[in-house]
Amino acid sequence: MKGAAVSLTIGVDVGGTKVAAGIVDRQGHILEKLRLPTPAASPEGTAKVIGDAVLELLGRHQIEAVGIGAAGFVDETSSRVLFAPNLAWREEAVKKHVEERVGVPVIVENDANAAAWAEVTFGAARGRRHVMLITVGTGIGAGIVLNGELYRGRWGIAGEPGHYRVIPDGRLCGCGNRGCWEQYASGNALVAEARDFARRSPGAAVRMLQLAGDSAEKITGLEVSQAAREGDAGALRCFDIVGGWLGQGLADLAAILDPGCFVIGGGVSDAGELLLGPAREAFSHGLTGGSHRERAEIRLAELGADAGLIGAADLARGR
Amino acid sequence: MKGAAVSLTIGVDVGGTKVAAGIVDRQGHILEKLRLPTPAASPEGTAKVIGDAVLELLGRHQIEAVGIGAAGFVDETSSRVLFAPNLAWREEAVKKHVEERVGVPVIVENDANAAAWAEVTFGAARGRRHVMLITVGTGIGAGIVLNGELYRGRWGIAGEPGHYRVIPDGRLCGCGNRGCWEQYASGNALVAEARDFARRSPGAAVRMLQLAGDSAEKITGLEVSQAAREGDAGALRCFDIVGGWLGQGLADLAAILDPGCFVIGGGVSDAGELLLGPAREAFSHGLTGGSHRERAEIRLAELGADAGLIGAADLARGR
Repeated sequence: MKGAAVSLTIGVDVGGTKVAAGIVDRQGHILEKLRLPTPAASPEGTAKVIGDAVLELLGRHQIEAVGIGAAGFVDETSSRVLFAPNLAWREEAVKKHVEERVGVPVIVENDANAAAWAEVTFGAARGRRHVMLITVGTGIGAGIVLNGELYRGRWGIAGEPGHYRVIPDGRLCGCGNRGCWEQYASGNALVAEARDFARRSPGAAVRMLQLAGDSAEKITGLEVSQAAREGDAGALRCFDIVGGWLGQGLADLAAILDPGCFVIGGGVSDAGELLLGPAREAFSHGLTGGSHRERAEIRLAELGADAGLIGAADLARGR
Repeated sequence: MKGAAVSLTIGVDVGGTKVAAGIVDRQGHILEKLRLPTPAASPEGTAKVIGDAVLELLGRHQIEAVGIGAAGFVDETSSRVLFAPNLAWREEAVKKHVEERVGVPVIVENDANAAAWAEVTFGAARGRRHVMLITVGTGIGAGIVLNGELYRGRWGIAGEPGHYRVIPDGRLCGCGNRGCWEQYASGNALVAEARDFARRSPGAAVRMLQLAGDSAEKITGLEVSQAAREGDAGALRCFDIVGGWLGQGLADLAAILDPGCFVIGGGVSDAGELLLGPAREAFSHGLTGGSHRERAEIRLAELGADAGLIGAADLARGR
């Protein structure tokens, strides 16, 4: 009985607005999940909410460990969050603070790293050993699995290709630099492209404008996707541009890391082939030495928004 | 006695003009080395010359294995050279052909991978576990050591950052694409910068022109380096530009891989701080999240032109 009981762990996904915590089994299934609002401005408050969620689940299940996934820089010992753009955590000893509250072992992991681990273990890249997950959301996140293991880097902050430079003196990025990949290949880039197009060529963007209440500023990813699915040329052009930047970036990453598989996740990946079609074309075109090498697969993520929670839970099991 | 004898391996460095083969001990010392011309246009001829060199050394030493380093794509099983820009090898079963000639186990490795292994094991990055070697020569080569192991990628072709794109529609590269890093941060780029400068501003490039017999087309890396060491502003400007591109590339690679140490080798690294000074400055400037993270070291390679031979020999020992 005990053997079965200890096969459960808790995964926690800490976002800027809510904390999701779930009981996860060895097969990556979520048995129960709950959500609480994140007091993002308070480092202690955020740790307390995580603790509350874990304690509530602990009251109903026997678990062996807790894995916390958070957007940000997590140190190489999976203990401290060095910096989190959407939370007040700065050099925060998250592992220690949550362990003190809940009394079971805790690890912390970058959310995209956790999601990459989940996709390799249970999702789109099962059985592959060299995989990059690229999450295309407001920005770009990434997790890298090499030789079948999550690769964290010397200080734990590997996997931030969203901030490699694709254009000198390009668009200003939230990181303070200019020309970062995520300014060209993210959901924000898709929306910026559509709004700019609608302002400059309202006649050609009429369908996107209709869907957005006739205001270029109200166009979001949803309107671009819907118009593109209907075959609207202006919306398809936006996906071609952003997908093209995505595929060029994958070609650059393949030159450096030669993965066997890219998994594309994040909200924009819901657009499916609208995004992946132009990405695959740009990837083939941009890949160096293309005629003398195998091409990496480019696949859609399978685990959706739960990937980070599931991956964090599974990584906690392994420690 | 036998225990001591089998601790030797042979490393072979296959270049476009010559084959160097050497006896290497466990400490990375070369006990004997010989060179033969490479019949680069003949795949069989090249394998024969390697075999001849190995057999000559085998006549005088007892060795356990042979490691061959070559510029090009080497498959993930360290057996076949898929493509070598300076040799006629295409999908060439080098391991098999050389083993048939010499009768001892053979492995094949990309030359920059072998050099990276040597620098981590015996050279500038001893004791470091997450290291990228960047060789700045006519082009840019690289080898990646992660978690203390050489990282080859899914198909063996990881470590070609010289062909990630730094400028859309940039300079034409030998690989067929445009805007590759090695067109901006290599020895060829340094020379192109200096010649262009001398053609456009001969008055400001007077020292480089003097050293090159008053012809912009005769300026090579040697003249640029000598003039820069003398403090010549024009030559220093060339190093600033190329070193700046080098440092930006290191910042991009750090965003992706977070290594603890970059080792800079290749012929241009003989210029030392002339190259590394501006590279370090651009690296600091371009590194994303710089205020929330540790900075990777940027060190000069220590093993020089023998690094590939030594590394190939040591990698052969391990199999």
